[in-house]
Amino acid sequence: MDWDQFYVPYQQTVTELKVKLRGLRNQYEKDGKNSPIEFVTGRVKSQASIEEKIVRRHLDEARLSLDLQDIAGVRIMTKYVEEIYTVVELLRGRTDFQILEERDYVMNAKPSGYRSYHMVIEYPVQMYSGEKKVLAEIQVRTVAMNVWATIEHDLRYKHGDELPKQIAEQLTVLADRNFEWDQRVSEIRAAE
Amino acid sequence: MDWDQFYVPYQQTVTELKVKLRGLRNQYEKDGKNSPIEFVTGRVKSQASIEEKIVRRHLDEARLSLDLQDIAGVRIMTKYVEEIYTVVELLRGRTDFQILEERDYVMNAKPSGYRSYHMVIEYPVQMYSGEKKVLAEIQVRTVAMNVWATIEHDLRYKHGDELPKQIAEQLTVLADRNFEWDQRVSEIRAAE
Amino acid sequence: MDWDQFYVPYQQTVTELKVKLRGLRNQYEKDGKNSPIEFVTGRVKSQASIEEKIVRRHLDEARLSLDLQDIAGVRIMTKYVEEIYTVVELLRGRTDFQILEERDYVMNAKPSGYRSYHMVIEYPVQMYSGEKKVLAEIQVRTVAMNVWATIEHDLRYKHGDELPKQIAEQLTVLADRNFEWDQRVSEIRAAE
Amino acid sequence: MDWDQFYVPYQQTVTELKVKLRGLRNQYEKDGKNSPIEFVTGRVKSQASIEEKIVRRHLDEARLSLDLQDIAGVRIMTKYVEEIYTVVELLRGRTDFQILEERDYVMNAKPSGYRSYHMVIEYPVQMYSGEKKVLAEIQVRTVAMNVWATIEHDLRYKHGDELPKQIAEQLTVLADRNFEWDQRVSEIRAAE
Repeated sequence: MDWDQFYVPYQQTVTELKVKLRGLRNQYEKDGKNSPIEFVTGRVKSQASIEEKIVRRHLDEARLSLDLQDIAGVRIMTKYVEEIYTVVELLRGRTDFQILEERDYVMNAKPSGYRSYHMVIEYPVQMYSGEKKVLAEIQVRTVAMNVWATIEHDLRYKHGDELPKQIAEQLTVLADRNFEWDQRVSEIRAAE
Repeated sequence: MDWDQFYVPYQQTVTELKVKLRGLRNQYEKDGKNSPIEFVTGRVKSQASIEEKIVRRHLDEARLSLDLQDIAGVRIMTKYVEEIYTVVELLRGRTDFQILEERDYVMNAKPSGYRSYHMVIEYPVQMYSGEKKVLAEIQVRTVAMNVWATIEHDLRYKHGDELPKQIAEQLTVLADRNFEWDQRVSEIRAAE
Repeated sequence: MDWDQFYVPYQQTVTELKVKLRGLRNQYEKDGKNSPIEFVTGRVKSQASIEEKIVRRHLDEARLSLDLQDIAGVRIMTKYVEEIYTVVELLRGRTDFQILEERDYVMNAKPSGYRSYHMVIEYPVQMYSGEKKVLAEIQVRTVAMNVWATIEHDLRYKHGDELPKQIAEQLTVLADRNFEWDQRVSEIRAAE
Repeated sequence: MDWDQFYVPYQQTVTELKVKLRGLRNQYEKDGKNSPIEFVTGRVKSQASIEEKIVRRHLDEARLSLDLQDIAGVRIMTKYVEEIYTVVELLRGRTDFQILEERDYVMNAKPSGYRSYHMVIEYPVQMYSGEKKVLAEIQVRTVAMNVWATIEHDLRYKHGDELPKQIAEQLTVLADRNFEWDQRVSEIRAAE
């Protein structure tokens, strides 16, 4: 498999979505309005990570673009929990991609404590040979949720992707405290 | 008029088109193919230049986005004359914008000697308030044509946008020589 | 005062420092090592903010580049508290700027609850007329400290730069909880 | 050999030099002055190209950073021939790198017809382990010289790096015509 070629449409999707979503933040600022988008990051799934999933989930290489929905991934960070839903509405209103699936892990955290709003979209990339529809995952979360996810990902990575039970439990506690913190912030903001 | 706000959709259009067209070059390279796109530049028309056109052509500020088709401008440079048409075909095949108008100043140079292929397109930008259709001009030319246009623009600018007749004539001669040069290059390339 | 001209060396300083510090993160990754630098942001102080300081602190416009040390500002975010000091050591070892001042607001939080490590540096920018020494402020903090600072800044901005006492107090409580959270994370990490 | 690691200081050098030299252009513009720098590009020498040189010139891998002076390469394009020397003076006045060597292929073209001003510099990059001095090549040329070099490089590449004698001769003729063209432009500009 030629990975360089394989990544072209995914990398292009990530680059275009980043430029588009960062542009929104800029538009809010120029209009003198508060932007619900604090910052945007993006990445393509690493080759090692894709190969690991092929083995673990018995995936067919020829069907990768259908079976892996997060090869292209974009993350939108908001300051406040309630802004996550403003961003979700914003994404629903766009005409440049189609939303295939939505999952609310903000209000329904994963057992690990992880919170984020997930969307799988189908984004049309213009290749020189014509349009190609690419699956991409958009995650929307507060900056605080993003801090927890960053730490959890780092500790998990150091333990070879499998966290010892005790650490996992401690991280779940920290995730919960983090969310309480986020809710306190929203209360302070609302009380103004 | 709030120029900062005015420019938002145009600047966004230019940024998106640059990222998209540069992505094509990358795709050719990753496929081990020669890219007809050598490099891509973009700019929004300066405020001074727009204001000058409003005065000279008696434009209505409220109709600027309709009457000025090149507020957003993108330029694609090719190595060879024949590649200009490869790029034109490529642009015609895209589904992310609509072509409104095409003018071939490559084979039919302007009296000044200027050569380029011009397209006016309608590009949909996603604003937070919804989709907005933006007019943009795409110019396709060889790197050599671009050199002449750069020089001509610089000398014209120094003379307050109006070239003395003698200089204009000399530049037309240089444009013609430039095109002969481009054609010699194409012959050498074809003879291989 | 021509602000466009005024900002040139500061903007250039920020751009260069961002590129340099982000390069370090890349170097760690290519060496297969954990990077103490999670991400880097930068900004020049807004014109409104400079003008406000001129009035409030009776500054002399001609001495702005000496009296305001944070016109150019760069921020380095780490995952863990202890990494802040790794980054500080890294900055001390560089030969491309000189450190004029250091303040540890990490271990000695400001009364508001604010935590960060501050450095004032003198960075030499190459202008076309020669070298110009520019003051810049580098802030080093964890991603969690950065979340609090982002929220605090946003709420303060909405109250016209002056937070009502009650909100300020609540934010101080949240800052303390945030730091406890950061310390718990470090404990979990150390216990591995 | 770990190429990813090998490239880090060279890629960093190219990135920093591009940002610094493009900043100069910006400075001229903000000062309302004509910039002698039209645009700046940069690249690191490809792995294939380095490996080919190792074989052909019997280089020692351990001495690559000393024996290959153009692993990091930056190109500055000017509009006019005389501006090449303005840029050379500008580079000589900088304090952020040291010039080791200069070669004027502008006034003394290579037998192929190639024209450019070459400089070898020693640029200090800040690695996390300390400062590292990196050799880099800066080429200064007009936009027209750059067009010829682009075409010549492309045709040479298609012939496996070795141009048939007849094509080489035709390209030399085109290089000479190109330089006459550049000189005519300078005469017109000087006559204003």
